[in-house]
Amino acid sequence: MFKTRICGIFGINIPIVQGGMVWNSGYELAAAVSEAGALGLIAAGSLSPAELRDQIRRCREVTSRNFGVNLPVFFRHADEAAQIIVEEKVPVVFTSGGSPARFTNEFKHNGIKVAHVCSTPSQAVKCEKAGVDAVVIEGFEAGGHNGRDELTTMVNVPQTVDAVSIPVIAAGGIADGRGMAAALCLGAEGVQVGSRFVASLEASGHPNFKRAVVEAQACDTFLILRRLMPTRVILNEFAGKALEAEQAGTDIEKLSALLGHGREEAGMACGDLREGELEIGQVAGMIKEIKPAAWIVRQMLSECENVLRRF
Amino acid sequence: MFKTRICGIFGINIPIVQGGMVWNSGYELAAAVSEAGALGLIAAGSLSPAELRDQIRRCREVTSRNFGVNLPVFFRHADEAAQIIVEEKVPVVFTSGGSPARFTNEFKHNGIKVAHVCSTPSQAVKCEKAGVDAVVIEGFEAGGHNGRDELTTMVNVPQTVDAVSIPVIAAGGIADGRGMAAALCLGAEGVQVGSRFVASLEASGHPNFKRAVVEAQACDTFLILRRLMPTRVILNEFAGKALEAEQAGTDIEKLSALLGHGREEAGMACGDLREGELEIGQVAGMIKEIKPAAWIVRQMLSECENVLRRF
Repeated sequence: MFKTRICGIFGINIPIVQGGMVWNSGYELAAAVSEAGALGLIAAGSLSPAELRDQIRRCREVTSRNFGVNLPVFFRHADEAAQIIVEEKVPVVFTSGGSPARFTNEFKHNGIKVAHVCSTPSQAVKCEKAGVDAVVIEGFEAGGHNGRDELTTMVNVPQTVDAVSIPVIAAGGIADGRGMAAALCLGAEGVQVGSRFVASLEASGHPNFKRAVVEAQACDTFLILRRLMPTRVILNEFAGKALEAEQAGTDIEKLSALLGHGREEAGMACGDLREGELEIGQVAGMIKEIKPAAWIVRQMLSECENVLRRF
Repeated sequence: MFKTRICGIFGINIPIVQGGMVWNSGYELAAAVSEAGALGLIAAGSLSPAELRDQIRRCREVTSRNFGVNLPVFFRHADEAAQIIVEEKVPVVFTSGGSPARFTNEFKHNGIKVAHVCSTPSQAVKCEKAGVDAVVIEGFEAGGHNGRDELTTMVNVPQTVDAVSIPVIAAGGIADGRGMAAALCLGAEGVQVGSRFVASLEASGHPNFKRAVVEAQACDTFLILRRLMPTRVILNEFAGKALEAEQAGTDIEKLSALLGHGREEAGMACGDLREGELEIGQVAGMIKEIKPAAWIVRQMLSECENVLRRF
């Protein structure tokens, strides 16, 4: 029912992409999503080069279907990671967090399909010019690192669809079939879903973090560090301190010192719910149970079909 | 095709509500929208009691269809305005910006249908308990006064639909039939559209303001005065000064002094594009032309039908 250009380009049956989320998206999650007919992504951003190679190989052992890697362009190991992706013949890469021009030519030259994640319609135009196959447009409601212009999915998707001719994947605020149906109505040809897959059996995040996501209510996330690196997290002790400092007009250097290093790992991989960064989208309030990734894919698809059939 | 409970409650044919926007929503706009089969609202918040009575009477002279008044609960003339609404037998009131319990009983007792505008699912639950007939849930992307929790339409609508049994009207980020279709997929039974009607022939805003809306690009609005009174406006000289002060940690008193008085009127009624408050939603970037209100209603409805028919 929902075969779009996204399916053809990435060689998948269901136009759902599982977001590549640091400390959460290992090969177990990516493989489970791809096995279910959608597109799973391994997050390179929290892996050493050796770990990335290992994760790609393990993924291939457990699924023969297409999967991909998410590569943050600003990542300190980005060059090595890109080389490994090419060597290991990963079929799909989603780049994010920097210029789409940085790696697109190299990947395309090696037969790899490329999407880039951006947060405004004009950035999407730059992605198209850089030669990507598709663009992910991510709204303010999304978890983790976020754009500075604070455009939401409702306004980003139609304006991006109007601005580019490549297919558009909607991200931010999509956790069930209603959100998927809404994104398709806005003109998206697929959805990238992050937060919902954090609370999956196969996600590699710490059980404490998964539990915090399931317990979070509608208003429990907030965008912090807006002048440094806007990041949506669950409000905990660290986030409270960061917000207080921001509101007091604390300068970037001091904010950077307050953030320090390793808070993403502390929060999401090690389960420090007080001092870690617990990156999740506003949809956390809609996520009530930890489920197998394949269940999430099937449920989202069938709910989307039911929603659209009503009209 | 889209007859929902909203149509029955408010006595309209098309589940589109024109937002009651100060300095923009006079009787000419409200009447034109109601004549087109949707629900027009006169904004009480920028009218003296005598002006409100006059506007209601004029509206009734030019349309025999149902229309309503938007009444901000915190408005200094709120009590007098409520009395006039009852005396003039206005059939519908949308209250906003304060407790839904303040006026609901009085209006309901007088046979008036009531909706309240809120910005989180838990506020919507309070509205239902206060006895309103419907709730408007407004997202972060919306123009003008905004909630403090920054929830977007994509996440607000489904969570509100799950939390209440009264019908839900989606607001924020909806300027065309794609947005309307998306809102219906999320579970809304109607949409409240503000910004798109600012750029209508019948809106009472200054021509300079209408032109500024038409010329605005995707990233040209921002939420300012977050700690004082969060308000989404077009970025102009005043907004830039406000943002700078906020980022420097300026205290509430000084922000309040910077805001001063009369900036809404200066910007939207008098057309001061530099120093006025130009309240508009993120959808400003999607609005390209000033059109008759009836055209906007018809276009939105037919586009919504076409979008949903595709699936």
